[in-house]
Amino acid sequence: MNRTKIASLYAGKEGFAGKDVTVAGWVRSIRDMKNFGFVVLNDGSCFKDLQVVLNREELANYDEVTSLTVGSALIVEGTLALTPDRPQPFELKAATVVVEGAAEPDYPMQKKRQTREFLRTQQHLRSRTNLFRAVFRVRSVAAFAIHTFFQERGFVYVNTPIITASDAEGAGEMFRVTTLDLNDVPRTEDGKVDWSKDFFGKPCNLTVSGQLQAENFAMSFGDVYTFGPTFRAEDSNTRRHAAEFWMVEPEMAFCDLAQDMDVAEDMLKYVIRYVMDRCPDELDMLNRFVDKGLKERLEHVASSDFARVSYTEAIEVLQAARDAGHEFEYPVEWGVDLQTEHERYLTEHHFGRPTFVTDYPAQIKAFYMRLNDDGRTVAAADCLVPGIGEIIGGSQREERLDVLERRIEELGMDESQYKYYLDLRRYGGCHHAGFGLGFERLVMYLTGIDNIRDVLPHPRTVGNADF
Amino acid sequence: MNRTKIASLYAGKEGFAGKDVTVAGWVRSIRDMKNFGFVVLNDGSCFKDLQVVLNREELANYDEVTSLTVGSALIVEGTLALTPDRPQPFELKAATVVVEGAAEPDYPMQKKRQTREFLRTQQHLRSRTNLFRAVFRVRSVAAFAIHTFFQERGFVYVNTPIITASDAEGAGEMFRVTTLDLNDVPRTEDGKVDWSKDFFGKPCNLTVSGQLQAENFAMSFGDVYTFGPTFRAEDSNTRRHAAEFWMVEPEMAFCDLAQDMDVAEDMLKYVIRYVMDRCPDELDMLNRFVDKGLKERLEHVASSDFARVSYTEAIEVLQAARDAGHEFEYPVEWGVDLQTEHERYLTEHHFGRPTFVTDYPAQIKAFYMRLNDDGRTVAAADCLVPGIGEIIGGSQREERLDVLERRIEELGMDESQYKYYLDLRRYGGCHHAGFGLGFERLVMYLTGIDNIRDVLPHPRTVGNADF
Repeated sequence: MNRTKIASLYAGKEGFAGKDVTVAGWVRSIRDMKNFGFVVLNDGSCFKDLQVVLNREELANYDEVTSLTVGSALIVEGTLALTPDRPQPFELKAATVVVEGAAEPDYPMQKKRQTREFLRTQQHLRSRTNLFRAVFRVRSVAAFAIHTFFQERGFVYVNTPIITASDAEGAGEMFRVTTLDLNDVPRTEDGKVDWSKDFFGKPCNLTVSGQLQAENFAMSFGDVYTFGPTFRAEDSNTRRHAAEFWMVEPEMAFCDLAQDMDVAEDMLKYVIRYVMDRCPDELDMLNRFVDKGLKERLEHVASSDFARVSYTEAIEVLQAARDAGHEFEYPVEWGVDLQTEHERYLTEHHFGRPTFVTDYPAQIKAFYMRLNDDGRTVAAADCLVPGIGEIIGGSQREERLDVLERRIEELGMDESQYKYYLDLRRYGGCHHAGFGLGFERLVMYLTGIDNIRDVLPHPRTVGNADF
Repeated sequence: MNRTKIASLYAGKEGFAGKDVTVAGWVRSIRDMKNFGFVVLNDGSCFKDLQVVLNREELANYDEVTSLTVGSALIVEGTLALTPDRPQPFELKAATVVVEGAAEPDYPMQKKRQTREFLRTQQHLRSRTNLFRAVFRVRSVAAFAIHTFFQERGFVYVNTPIITASDAEGAGEMFRVTTLDLNDVPRTEDGKVDWSKDFFGKPCNLTVSGQLQAENFAMSFGDVYTFGPTFRAEDSNTRRHAAEFWMVEPEMAFCDLAQDMDVAEDMLKYVIRYVMDRCPDELDMLNRFVDKGLKERLEHVASSDFARVSYTEAIEVLQAARDAGHEFEYPVEWGVDLQTEHERYLTEHHFGRPTFVTDYPAQIKAFYMRLNDDGRTVAAADCLVPGIGEIIGGSQREERLDVLERRIEELGMDESQYKYYLDLRRYGGCHHAGFGLGFERLVMYLTGIDNIRDVLPHPRTVGNADF
């Protein structure tokens, strides 16, 4: 079978006009008008459907085909006819239709609108709906845009490990990875778990970040990035948290915080433009049915210069807003972490464009962030975007061995766990910086979808590991 | 600091000639010739180094710089001079040198040759050696080649889940993922582990393959692929096995076994050409110091038509070889799985090029492979390549609901675990196929490296989860 994808028909319809082609796909609707039948077929190669025309007089199995239900798989051979007077640019006049697989009548993806909650119980089928077809193609195109952005700039892609014996930064609760039999956990003489019997000979977890290992490679390749799954075992049932999600973490040698922000800004704009160029039908659909401001917001972000403001100035802005009558749920004073309401006020109301907030108090940021000369803030930069709040968290890393050792000691961390990390400062260390982008949060931003469960192919959250 | 990468100097040396540039990188060697000094600098942007010339009379900190040791980080500003009469095409005459980070004298990556075993204990530093710089750049370029190959052909990238409650295909031992406290495992009334108390409310593992979930998306997008980490908790300490490795798994609707092999062959050739085009210096180095036949072999594979032979014919070939005096360690008769010695005989000696072996006995292959009309073989295809043996395993999938249900029952599998998978056959199923490529095995093939521990940034094997 030499089949033509529907995307190819749309891309080169003039060349196919009057030609015999074979297409294969799934039925989205069927109408039987007695002597003529119409099948709307989609093969997943593009968002658009193909209209297939059936002629009772010419098609031997006309009755078989027109009695099929939505979701059935067909192989259709016929002639492509341009139809400049109709809504669709062309249709396929079927000569033969092979019923590859009929859908049983209880097919859950009927044409009527389904709630997203119901569709989450049908994760193996939901990508057949317009909504999820749009979301998961945007996800794929955005992922490739990220790879292309970094590879074109000479970054080396590094697959940092998923299973790890360290806890990276104490960033969150971790999942234990083990081959021990939980029915019969081996014990040491003093009754503790005998980790020497485990696969790796020590307790291991799923990674929460590849950053520290990415730094190993930034110190040889200069510019590197990771793009892989990370994990949090947090019992938080929100629309923005999943137990398993993908992170992008570039790390750059000889890079300071301002350059770090430049790369983050360029990357976001690049990905947005890339998706707008390649997924116009998907964005149109999402703009119509999910988020009416989507396309305008993406266009705005892609063409804005991002604002940059220090945390200290940001607190002053927020306090002034509060004093002028704006109500915040959480307190605003120097030293507190910014809440989503604060972030959104800054980026949506005050600056009206994406905003980097820099130089946060050291006590609310991770140990590896570079201490500023004021001794109380660190060279961090979070990127806030309208409609969502924080989408990127980055920093210049502490490259000074003595300062880093002091910080590890102050925080009561186990220095022996960080020997390798400190080695990077002993042997040709240099100023460097990086950031982390939560990929699902980016996909939510690109699609207007407000629940992380709907941008992950098979989301993992508390109590949910089906499919 | 507006620095220029060394890769840019090589790419556009004419444009930089006589110009003032700033470079930043790490010292690979230093020679002090009394009035002149020479620093070989590498910044990781390309395999090639940059020669920096220091003039005692012009450089204020000449003594400081020339007393530095290998691995130190420098920022050098100076004038680029073309040197058509010397081995290197240009050199940088330093005006200022900033010592960004001196390497302590016990730096483990000295210029002398280190064994690969020793370097495995220095995973945070080993990518600074020529060998690992070559390996990990090839890895990155090959990964992007794979994404590019599939995206250019309209495949949708799907991130299948890492944490899973099913065991995919019983392909291997799995790692348990849990948040239960192993010191105090909760129990049900009858004394068993109370999985309802675990994070996901049931026992969960790390995935061994994303294939079954990829099929969900192939039935809506037509062509999809995964590229992510997979896991095996097997206690096998070989040069070819790791507990954590990356897999590429395309899955294609309306695709038969012959077309599946076409895609696999095209993909391998594409990736090889892509890496040969973009990593010539790296492949030269690997060809000289690791595997003298590497470049010739890659060129041969990229330009060969792959052979295709049925398992039954392959057994006959091997039996004839045995009868003619070729010694195999393992027996050769219809029904046995092929060992690496058999695979290599076929691809290296008999066919002398990459070879697909097809239509294996059903009893040695997975449940989801399509049963052939002979009732005893399945539509599987393994791709064998000279020098390594199996690199790809693929098959057409069983799309017939009744045949698949019978197979699941025959194998004593729990059908309730496969409801979703069977649904794909109930609702518009179609013939489809796919394959799995072990990414590390491909990188080993591309680099000539014979140990999987040396192509993973931080390998995880029995007893090893450091870094």
